[in-house]
Amino acid sequence: YGYTGLTLTKYVMTIMIGALTGFIAFIMESAMKHGLHFKAECTAWALETQGLGGGFAIHATISLSLVIFASGLVQFYSPESAGGGVTLVKAFLNGIHIPHLLSVRTLIAKIVGTTAGVLSSLAVGPEGPMVHIGACVAAVLTTPFQTSSFREELSTGHDRGHYPSKRQSKWFNSRLFVSLLSDVDQREFVSAGTAAGLAAAFGAPIGGVLFALEEASSFWNHKVTWRCFLCAASASFVLAFLHGTNTGLVSLEGLKNPSQVQWMQQTPFMILVAGLSGLIGGIFNVLHSWLAAYRAPRSSPTAPIAEAVVICMVTVGCFFVLPYLFMSCQDRPHDWLEEEYGFRFLCEEGQYDEVATMFFSSSEETIKKILQMGEQTDGGYEDPFTRKSLCIFAGAYLMIMSLACGAAVPGGLFMPSIMLGSSFGAVMGSCLDMWWPNWHIQPGLYALIGATAVLGGVFRSTISIVVIVVEGTGGIEFVFTIIIAIVVSDWVASQVHHHGIYEGDLDRDMRLAFLQTEPPSPYSNIMARDIMSKKVLGLRPLEKASRILEVLRTSSHNGFPVFECVKSLDGDEPVVRRGALQGLILRSQLLVLLKHKQFVHKDAKLEPSPSSRHLSGDQDDDDSLEESGGLQPPSSRELVIDTEMRTFHHRWDAQERYRCKEASLLADYTCAAAGTSATSGSDRQLDHMMVDVSHYMNRSVLTVREECSAAKVYTIFRALGLRHMCVVDDLQHPVGMVTRKDLMCSHSEED
Amino acid sequence: YGYTGLTLTKYVMTIMIGALTGFIAFIMESAMKHGLHFKAECTAWALETQGLGGGFAIHATISLSLVIFASGLVQFYSPESAGGGVTLVKAFLNGIHIPHLLSVRTLIAKIVGTTAGVLSSLAVGPEGPMVHIGACVAAVLTTPFQTSSFREELSTGHDRGHYPSKRQSKWFNSRLFVSLLSDVDQREFVSAGTAAGLAAAFGAPIGGVLFALEEASSFWNHKVTWRCFLCAASASFVLAFLHGTNTGLVSLEGLKNPSQVQWMQQTPFMILVAGLSGLIGGIFNVLHSWLAAYRAPRSSPTAPIAEAVVICMVTVGCFFVLPYLFMSCQDRPHDWLEEEYGFRFLCEEGQYDEVATMFFSSSEETIKKILQMGEQTDGGYEDPFTRKSLCIFAGAYLMIMSLACGAAVPGGLFMPSIMLGSSFGAVMGSCLDMWWPNWHIQPGLYALIGATAVLGGVFRSTISIVVIVVEGTGGIEFVFTIIIAIVVSDWVASQVHHHGIYEGDLDRDMRLAFLQTEPPSPYSNIMARDIMSKKVLGLRPLEKASRILEVLRTSSHNGFPVFECVKSLDGDEPVVRRGALQGLILRSQLLVLLKHKQFVHKDAKLEPSPSSRHLSGDQDDDDSLEESGGLQPPSSRELVIDTEMRTFHHRWDAQERYRCKEASLLADYTCAAAGTSATSGSDRQLDHMMVDVSHYMNRSVLTVREECSAAKVYTIFRALGLRHMCVVDDLQHPVGMVTRKDLMCSHSEED
Repeated sequence: YGYTGLTLTKYVMTIMIGALTGFIAFIMESAMKHGLHFKAECTAWALETQGLGGGFAIHATISLSLVIFASGLVQFYSPESAGGGVTLVKAFLNGIHIPHLLSVRTLIAKIVGTTAGVLSSLAVGPEGPMVHIGACVAAVLTTPFQTSSFREELSTGHDRGHYPSKRQSKWFNSRLFVSLLSDVDQREFVSAGTAAGLAAAFGAPIGGVLFALEEASSFWNHKVTWRCFLCAASASFVLAFLHGTNTGLVSLEGLKNPSQVQWMQQTPFMILVAGLSGLIGGIFNVLHSWLAAYRAPRSSPTAPIAEAVVICMVTVGCFFVLPYLFMSCQDRPHDWLEEEYGFRFLCEEGQYDEVATMFFSSSEETIKKILQMGEQTDGGYEDPFTRKSLCIFAGAYLMIMSLACGAAVPGGLFMPSIMLGSSFGAVMGSCLDMWWPNWHIQPGLYALIGATAVLGGVFRSTISIVVIVVEGTGGIEFVFTIIIAIVVSDWVASQVHHHGIYEGDLDRDMRLAFLQTEPPSPYSNIMARDIMSKKVLGLRPLEKASRILEVLRTSSHNGFPVFECVKSLDGDEPVVRRGALQGLILRSQLLVLLKHKQFVHKDAKLEPSPSSRHLSGDQDDDDSLEESGGLQPPSSRELVIDTEMRTFHHRWDAQERYRCKEASLLADYTCAAAGTSATSGSDRQLDHMMVDVSHYMNRSVLTVREECSAAKVYTIFRALGLRHMCVVDDLQHPVGMVTRKDLMCSHSEED
Repeated sequence: YGYTGLTLTKYVMTIMIGALTGFIAFIMESAMKHGLHFKAECTAWALETQGLGGGFAIHATISLSLVIFASGLVQFYSPESAGGGVTLVKAFLNGIHIPHLLSVRTLIAKIVGTTAGVLSSLAVGPEGPMVHIGACVAAVLTTPFQTSSFREELSTGHDRGHYPSKRQSKWFNSRLFVSLLSDVDQREFVSAGTAAGLAAAFGAPIGGVLFALEEASSFWNHKVTWRCFLCAASASFVLAFLHGTNTGLVSLEGLKNPSQVQWMQQTPFMILVAGLSGLIGGIFNVLHSWLAAYRAPRSSPTAPIAEAVVICMVTVGCFFVLPYLFMSCQDRPHDWLEEEYGFRFLCEEGQYDEVATMFFSSSEETIKKILQMGEQTDGGYEDPFTRKSLCIFAGAYLMIMSLACGAAVPGGLFMPSIMLGSSFGAVMGSCLDMWWPNWHIQPGLYALIGATAVLGGVFRSTISIVVIVVEGTGGIEFVFTIIIAIVVSDWVASQVHHHGIYEGDLDRDMRLAFLQTEPPSPYSNIMARDIMSKKVLGLRPLEKASRILEVLRTSSHNGFPVFECVKSLDGDEPVVRRGALQGLILRSQLLVLLKHKQFVHKDAKLEPSPSSRHLSGDQDDDDSLEESGGLQPPSSRELVIDTEMRTFHHRWDAQERYRCKEASLLADYTCAAAGTSATSGSDRQLDHMMVDVSHYMNRSVLTVREECSAAKVYTIFRALGLRHMCVVDDLQHPVGMVTRKDLMCSHSEED
């Protein structure tokens, strides 16, 4: 708290993220609206002039080219932009590094790809992608101008004389930026971005915040809530300002004034409809995970594109075959003409085909019309869709939606779920109205219940969906009904399928070591020693540079325990025992040390390290840099190294950091290091160079005993958001390491 | 997950808590409504027949007796029930044990006292207390039938033969109850209870959940959210069912259809009004913390009662003096007669006095009338209150509210804040309407903004207040306005006063060591050794019973590190050095050990302890009890001890546990222990009895190094919800302990 310059910058940043997300939502909405309109007009013109075949040809051509474009974008430009993206954002916020997930590339691919995907007739919506887009915007906006500021520092860093003066002259002092982009801060901004994305998608600021808290974020606190709220509110404001009404990409408005509902009497029906819709949601999840096994492998460059094309053909086929088989023409009401709603297909002039209208029109309009069913208006309003058409539509939609979800095309699930749920609910409501005509049963209300319940069944979020639906419909008077629908559907769906769609995807993706809040149940019976990886790759306090290089090259760990090796004789053979753990050093610290040639002579004694340096390995305590250096003024060279270590993660973003594995970065370091003693880059010369690791390592490492219960290890790991933890025996000798992967692997093995 | 019997029981429990809270809210509401009505009628009658003096006498008599009753209840029956109670519940959920906070006594005192407090004309509301009541209901419902089940086990425990058979015969097996009432579970239920309380108070299920998450809970996760949601929904349902409409104790309904609002044009005015109202909220907080220094000390039994009486006299004085000085009679509209609204005071028959009406009527009705101001109705509706009366009322209310908040009477701040905010907002709106008559400024809308902004300024919650106001008014169309009001007022109020009302109270109460999410900023520059308490009270692995008794008697710690003492000679004097830390034993474990006379002979060797036993000190791993005992079947005596240790905290509730300090419980143990060797209770005989502490201690303790940054210690402590943590040097020798108090004290010293 306290409104310093830093806080103000963060405020402005938050509002900018929200505003930009809102603006992107507006652009996408306009593009999709006009595109769909254009496509429908083309098809209608072709149907009229060229007949059914011509219409199909035109429609299929447009759709297929869009699908090929979208899936090509995913396959060749940005693989991370496939699907909804919420799952990956969720994994990122849990602490998993996913290369390129939140890059500019992904942002562009997502915006363009989602628009193309939605326009291509596939049963995908723009809401899930909006969440990903919001997260990308947050990451992109917070990264670049900071990186550049550090580049500047880096370039001046070598020229040591100017360094401190330059630093003071800047109004934006470096500390501001270090704090701005600590990992934790960026994660908070990304949380706020997801909130803004969903808020823009539904025009639901509070719903967005709740979604970010309930679904996306793994770490909650009061500050994150407030930041999400500000960001979501500014996104909604910008969007509302740009298009004049306060709705989002998908509006659920339509259901109004159900004046004569006997709530008590109808509650059993509502529970029934909610239960059945929840069941459909659960069935969709089952279908989705069953289909996942038959999907084209992502590693192949073209198979996913072919898959997307096939799915698109099936979808377009449905669009034409079903209305053709079940032709149902009705007169087009006057107000529809003004709205340009209703698709003629093969009907007479001035009529519309029910099934074709539902398929070809924009989903938003169709949902609105379904929710309006049974409304008490003055002009004796006829229901626009009959039970038969709705039934056909709902069935076909479940199929094409299951196919589309998981294809290599950017696109989300919210809108399709609402579409499916509302059409199914309307069928049910309409049936109930037919059976009990005196009960004033309003199909639109049941459509809302159905939509809510399918959302609940698919996503298993609770309050966020309630709030999104309440905000989306603007109908606070239905809040109790919506709550009942959510509770019932959550229960029913959990009987059919264990997980929500996101958890299911996370479980399936073996690359993602997602840590749930609670330890898996078998963990309470095993100990830390059962889950740890026993191969400990450690360094000595004074280590040969060549060995450090080797360790860095051959492993992909991020942290290395530091301990002395004690040689002793066990019978005949000499055995090397591990000494007590002295500290932990990070991969990034080692790289900086090598780069700066911090070598000492082989026989040099370890100098006693000043206590103020002990903290330096602590990534989280960025603030302590300036204040803690009071004991003895460090040399400017030490200062540069210190700063570089702290800012390593900001300068090299996640993906580059892992490139080290491929030794490309390391090769540079090797050359640089060798340059001190000779011109050749061979490792031999490095054998004589020692690095004083103990000077830079983090001495206050958190360790656990090997007898500690695995559940406790899990809890500590998760609560503190650790990446590695050292397991020791009762004499503090390291016996193993626990990483995220260890916690996941042993879990899945035992399942 | 997985719907086992345990999960089902928890579900039923959650719904029961919600339902009972809703029922209590209904009872309280009826009592308050009828009570207020009766009181107003009495006063009106007295005014008519006895004149001003008689009216005052009657009113003052009723009010004073109620205040004396309520404050007497607080002072002599249940001191924990004073005030709103939200602060204390918040502290409880942060992990602080407050004796009697959630007992049946407090529940009864709170229900009766709040009703009396509200009826006594003091400016207090029933909403804060409802939160406390919900929490009490949760604690009370989850505690008793479990305690009794354990008592049974205890009584059969001594008679070892029957124990296992009895255990299996029960359908409700003991494990179910152990899990039900682990500390963590109970905290979750209490969170759910607070959600239910607020949901019932405002008829706002989602608002209740958000309040529980944003304000009350310190530990959030998905499961807690879902439980809160279920509980809040069931409370709202029950309340809505009982009184037919879906409003809570306080309804904000009234503002309807502001059709002609030019949002864009009026936004600057709205921001202005929100800012000023936020300022008032901040000023109230300043006043409140300033007055806190002059309050009667709670330790005195009668002074707080006298204080409450004085405050009540001042309040009743306002009620009579202000309407008398600023008499403003208006004709009473017809619909008011039906509602029995409007207070005649000294006006003619068929008229009402504006100021008196606001003071004497139920606050809910008055708020409703204020929010309706400026509504476009058919019959050319006159505003019920003039600017002058509203102005006088708002000023007086700020004063009496500041006085009442903090008195020794149960009562909350929500309703008074709304009252103050809406009257102030209405004044502003009405002024704006006067100055720009063509802009269609609706004072009711500004009243809503004012109410929201004052709430925001006083409480500094953000989304929960937005949702509560949206749900309370049923006006989702105002959501943007409400968000602006909250954001502006939060910013303005933070300039005036640093903390929200709850944080301020927590800071002031030195008994409560409340840990915020983030470490205080000076902590990043100091080390663990600077905050730890250096006096370590430890035990040896094999310790004399007499020393254990002494340690338990003379200290109030809950955990004791276990280490060997190494005697060596430092120069001339023999020095006792601490050996390496071996484990940690809890006070409760020691008490059980003493009670069960687990003594070994002085010269006995330590037996190697089976590894399965290592987990036994772990309070959180209740589930491991049955499963982990596979290695070697423990004797039934060991089983009993094991079970008792685990269930200690359930059998002796928080307050009884701390009575140990006063040695009353210990005396029993001493006698029991001494009983083995002799009949006298002297400690001398215990000198020869040793307790094998190492057999029961927790070997996998989390320790930190003394060089670790204090901020890191704080983060670990807070994230894992610890109560004590051992600080060690680099050889694992304990050098200090960190407890909650240590983290707080050093913080407040440095501030």
